[in-house]
Amino acid sequence: MFRETARRFVGAEVAPHVDAWRRQGHVDRAVFRKAGEAGLLLMWADESLGGSGIADLRFDQILQEEVVRGGDPGFYQNLHSQIVAPYIGHFGSPEQKRRFLPGAVSGETILALAMTEPSAGSDVAAIRTTAEDKGDHWLLNGSKTYISNGILADVVIVAARTDREARHGIGLFIVERDMEGFARGRKLGKLGLPMQDTAELFFNDVKLPKENLIGAPDRGFAYMAELLANERLQVAIGSLAHAQAAFDLTLDFIRERRAFGKPVGAMQNSRFVMAALRTRLDATQAFVDQCVMLANAGRLTADVAAEVKLLASELENDTIDDCLQLHGGAGYMDEYRISRMYADARVSRIFAGTSEIMKEIIGRALGLDERKLR
Amino acid sequence: MFRETARRFVGAEVAPHVDAWRRQGHVDRAVFRKAGEAGLLLMWADESLGGSGIADLRFDQILQEEVVRGGDPGFYQNLHSQIVAPYIGHFGSPEQKRRFLPGAVSGETILALAMTEPSAGSDVAAIRTTAEDKGDHWLLNGSKTYISNGILADVVIVAARTDREARHGIGLFIVERDMEGFARGRKLGKLGLPMQDTAELFFNDVKLPKENLIGAPDRGFAYMAELLANERLQVAIGSLAHAQAAFDLTLDFIRERRAFGKPVGAMQNSRFVMAALRTRLDATQAFVDQCVMLANAGRLTADVAAEVKLLASELENDTIDDCLQLHGGAGYMDEYRISRMYADARVSRIFAGTSEIMKEIIGRALGLDERKLR
Amino acid sequence: MFRETARRFVGAEVAPHVDAWRRQGHVDRAVFRKAGEAGLLLMWADESLGGSGIADLRFDQILQEEVVRGGDPGFYQNLHSQIVAPYIGHFGSPEQKRRFLPGAVSGETILALAMTEPSAGSDVAAIRTTAEDKGDHWLLNGSKTYISNGILADVVIVAARTDREARHGIGLFIVERDMEGFARGRKLGKLGLPMQDTAELFFNDVKLPKENLIGAPDRGFAYMAELLANERLQVAIGSLAHAQAAFDLTLDFIRERRAFGKPVGAMQNSRFVMAALRTRLDATQAFVDQCVMLANAGRLTADVAAEVKLLASELENDTIDDCLQLHGGAGYMDEYRISRMYADARVSRIFAGTSEIMKEIIGRALGLDERKLR
Amino acid sequence: MFRETARRFVGAEVAPHVDAWRRQGHVDRAVFRKAGEAGLLLMWADESLGGSGIADLRFDQILQEEVVRGGDPGFYQNLHSQIVAPYIGHFGSPEQKRRFLPGAVSGETILALAMTEPSAGSDVAAIRTTAEDKGDHWLLNGSKTYISNGILADVVIVAARTDREARHGIGLFIVERDMEGFARGRKLGKLGLPMQDTAELFFNDVKLPKENLIGAPDRGFAYMAELLANERLQVAIGSLAHAQAAFDLTLDFIRERRAFGKPVGAMQNSRFVMAALRTRLDATQAFVDQCVMLANAGRLTADVAAEVKLLASELENDTIDDCLQLHGGAGYMDEYRISRMYADARVSRIFAGTSEIMKEIIGRALGLDERKLR
Repeated sequence: MFRETARRFVGAEVAPHVDAWRRQGHVDRAVFRKAGEAGLLLMWADESLGGSGIADLRFDQILQEEVVRGGDPGFYQNLHSQIVAPYIGHFGSPEQKRRFLPGAVSGETILALAMTEPSAGSDVAAIRTTAEDKGDHWLLNGSKTYISNGILADVVIVAARTDREARHGIGLFIVERDMEGFARGRKLGKLGLPMQDTAELFFNDVKLPKENLIGAPDRGFAYMAELLANERLQVAIGSLAHAQAAFDLTLDFIRERRAFGKPVGAMQNSRFVMAALRTRLDATQAFVDQCVMLANAGRLTADVAAEVKLLASELENDTIDDCLQLHGGAGYMDEYRISRMYADARVSRIFAGTSEIMKEIIGRALGLDERKLR
Repeated sequence: MFRETARRFVGAEVAPHVDAWRRQGHVDRAVFRKAGEAGLLLMWADESLGGSGIADLRFDQILQEEVVRGGDPGFYQNLHSQIVAPYIGHFGSPEQKRRFLPGAVSGETILALAMTEPSAGSDVAAIRTTAEDKGDHWLLNGSKTYISNGILADVVIVAARTDREARHGIGLFIVERDMEGFARGRKLGKLGLPMQDTAELFFNDVKLPKENLIGAPDRGFAYMAELLANERLQVAIGSLAHAQAAFDLTLDFIRERRAFGKPVGAMQNSRFVMAALRTRLDATQAFVDQCVMLANAGRLTADVAAEVKLLASELENDTIDDCLQLHGGAGYMDEYRISRMYADARVSRIFAGTSEIMKEIIGRALGLDERKLR
Repeated sequence: MFRETARRFVGAEVAPHVDAWRRQGHVDRAVFRKAGEAGLLLMWADESLGGSGIADLRFDQILQEEVVRGGDPGFYQNLHSQIVAPYIGHFGSPEQKRRFLPGAVSGETILALAMTEPSAGSDVAAIRTTAEDKGDHWLLNGSKTYISNGILADVVIVAARTDREARHGIGLFIVERDMEGFARGRKLGKLGLPMQDTAELFFNDVKLPKENLIGAPDRGFAYMAELLANERLQVAIGSLAHAQAAFDLTLDFIRERRAFGKPVGAMQNSRFVMAALRTRLDATQAFVDQCVMLANAGRLTADVAAEVKLLASELENDTIDDCLQLHGGAGYMDEYRISRMYADARVSRIFAGTSEIMKEIIGRALGLDERKLR
Repeated sequence: MFRETARRFVGAEVAPHVDAWRRQGHVDRAVFRKAGEAGLLLMWADESLGGSGIADLRFDQILQEEVVRGGDPGFYQNLHSQIVAPYIGHFGSPEQKRRFLPGAVSGETILALAMTEPSAGSDVAAIRTTAEDKGDHWLLNGSKTYISNGILADVVIVAARTDREARHGIGLFIVERDMEGFARGRKLGKLGLPMQDTAELFFNDVKLPKENLIGAPDRGFAYMAELLANERLQVAIGSLAHAQAAFDLTLDFIRERRAFGKPVGAMQNSRFVMAALRTRLDATQAFVDQCVMLANAGRLTADVAAEVKLLASELENDTIDDCLQLHGGAGYMDEYRISRMYADARVSRIFAGTSEIMKEIIGRALGLDERKLR
């Protein structure tokens, strides 16, 4: 039933705007408000904050599947609801929840998360942005890059160094749209995802009220570590949804498209390629579903989350590559969705931690750590 | 608790004999009797037939995991209990169940299944062995090859053509050890699995009593189709168990073995290889477990069974290949189990239907069938 | 010495314009004229036609390497000189050579080749465009798609059916810019190669003078078959050049870019990835060079040409994918060339015959042909 | 012409003995003498030493191809002629050449090379076997493992540490069959290559005359480094020959063997698999041939040798795996050569330096060295 709701929402509020959003280079803010009205944002948030109090991640999983399937490729509702908002939901003060979450639930406040820096990449410990304790406020200086929703966001959670000595002396700060000294760079041009906005953010002597620090000033690293498992599961859900969508539209295509006197889908090679994909899709779905249930139970570990992210993002890329090939020349042309999916998908093996970082995490959990194994 | 029982059985009754069995080229018949005594065979059989009435496949799954882990690589208890015996259990008459199943439960009667023929390979419809209806008996003529348990078996279920015209006019017949005209060829030499006996069987005017036909004389193909899904799930369970065992012993090996001044396991390449394997192992385990539950519910379809067999057998081979490589020169030597696993594993992508046949099955279930798509 | 000339030309006449060309969606016609002035077009053409009479393909190979390296990714000089012009050079009448080749040598006449049709894909035998013999002229009707240089071209060689009965009854016709009934569609949007123009062409009762037929009216298929080997070698040369360029720029990148406290290039995984690529690049270079020498000697067969095209285009894609990954997040951003290369490269496994068609050709040359093997 | 000679020799002196040699676990010494009589050993040796003075490696390449093709898989003539003997030929004194090479040329003296140690693997710098300078002799102590020709060899060149301090303080010593304190372990059981003898060697206070040291006592590492490039090229030649042989016999097999009503070779999947292999075989052949010519010219570098060894050994394994699969069940049975090839081939990615070591060598030649890149 919820899938039906989600599908209807996507059909009405996302699909019709895709071409326009792609041309303008970002989604309309309105889609967040519409999603909020439909009760699709921060479903986990308490009813007192406007949410539905639904902790079961399967709802967001279904929503993400439908947004991807019909939304080509949709908007960052999962980033908003499941990746950024939980920093406030889990670690924020009651006052922070009251200030920021109702707007996030309604879609009036769009959220972003700013960790990555130009010189640090995925290495959180190399963050150079600083937040200095000035007694009655924090003074924020530095810059961030590759920030999704960077242009649209009203509230950005920023990781900044509060202690120059301790490698992990990082705090998380809430930066608001109109704060002085907070500037956004241009939207960054990228290989794919033209309607997803990705930007640089600059912080130049931004004065942050004390109450905009989330939790403790030296616990940011721990907070991120705790929420990264769910973030990676969200990416895995999205990757799998893309792979599945590519598979489905290709199955339709090759049943119709003829070559050398018969449907492309009647050739043994096409059958074998699709069979191999179907197999991996079904197995990955079983694994994603298992991880969703683990996350629901609070038992999704960092290494298993890294596994599911690694697996699903590779499957997404392999599936779309194979499916594009089955399209032949059509697969390279804008008029077929598969060509866009190819460019979009490439980032999945990079963001939220590259495949290499996933392997580091998994390998270390196996005890294969050069610092420990001597 | 059951895993503990299984592990103890393997430690006591399988592991100590492995070297001897490998030299002699087959397991001892006694191991089946011991397994029967321990209640580990045909656990699904009704208590009236000596069984435990346990339909839940997870018990056989656990048993198989333990047999593989400790038994290097063990004996064909799953072939006996889960692949052959169900032909009688599902399609046999009450009288056939009474005649054959108690011995199978106790391990006194070892079972084999004879489908493959020298010229037909996996193509069941090309079977040439014939069973002619002679009024009061069936006259069986032909030969079979690559029959597992072929030398040891007391009872062999044989697929034979009962109708020369109908492509699928196949019946299943119970052939017993001492029947006149039933001969076994030599044990066939093969790449691996030296203690698993694989043989040719010859049927030369074997007179089969009417009551040795299973079910209807033209329904053999349908019976096989119905049980093949479970057969392939059994193979998948075994493949995954081998992959897991190879992974575990390699993890131990690379933590100890040093090269170029540090443990092999401390190198980034080793970490990445193991991380990628761990990921696939966990995902495949999730899928196998899901299929076991589907089979328990009677809902495992032929195409999903083909998927899990394809996936697990490829994972088995890839895992063992990677793990052997991590052993370096040691991996090629008899003294390390991984070298034997490498030769053993190669058959998994072939038996119970090759990977190519699996892809045909999966692909056709997707509607990609050259006979239907025009 | 010639490489130096080529490099200087690219530095002066291609590189400075790349950004503008990309924005406008096609190269300037002027680059062809400049290349002509520099003696870089149709080097094989006889001196009487303005060419240099250099049959050695290594010159065009070097030119292509330099155009790719410095030109990001350059213009279609190899299509012009080595893929289209030879149709006139090899099969044209002396009068056709005099009419069309001097302009092609000087770059004033830009060439294109029109084989592919909307419904036929790579299946030349399915061509529906017709040329009807009207006594004193041919009447051309139909349409073509995915035509490179489609917008810029002054002269297009068009494959059209001259015989509705014979599957291979195809002729090649020279269509000129201003002929009545010849129209171009819009430039087609595509995944990559934004500055390469790709268009649909329409022929609506185009009256072609008799002397615009190349060779015999039923020999077009044979002509194409003969020149396709060289076309595919040209594609292979280009693919390898792209792979090499991606490798080189990535080697520079990973020596500088730091992650987790050291250069990315100092990590074992980076070293292994680059080593594996270096190995394939060197082997493919040896094979391409061998094929160039074979082509020089007139001994490059269709199947070996299919092999080198298949191999080099897969290497191009794999190399660029691995190299993009080594860039991390930067690899997805427009400011790094590798991101553009990723989108550009995807067509190499499709155009001039997909990888699947290459395998068909190679496989049939091995005698593995379902029409012959029964 | 030479190929014909080689083929005749293999047909007469190798092929007929293969089964017997496999059973007895080693080739007969006689095959070396027969090869010597035929002028096939150490062809490079000076005529004054009984050789033919042929430096062109293409002769040994052809010999190796024929030995592999007809010899299933033949004997270690290339180890003898091209890998071990050059240590004396290049670095030995005139007196050492006179003492040892004529017997090696005639095949009366079989050669082996002992570098690898139980605990050191491929890490030459970790060698623990010591040679102590006792004034009028060297005293050799230690052990070696995985030594090819270990049982048959009359003369073994042993790498031993002459300087406990210097990591590379290694000398090469000539150990002769009957020296006191030199013992051989049992033939080591291994995954494949049953007729190639592989053994442990033990040195217990072996007194070596001063004149059994090759060159300078601290130059062994440099000598090995110099000859390893050629050793790896030899392995590459052998691997490619195996891959080619597997391909050829499989091509024959799939043209005949029928499945599901037609030859296996008529299926598109078979055609595609073979086409992909043919492509890689031809490219690798071009690269191997290029490397042979480089080696002839004394210009084969360590990194290019590592590349060709890496590439060819992976191709050997992939080819044989694919070819076995195309055999179906037959591929797992002893009666088909492909099953033996599968077990034999696995060592190629390990010996003469694992694939991982090859990648280290290639990667470091690219400047990707964690010791240099900071």
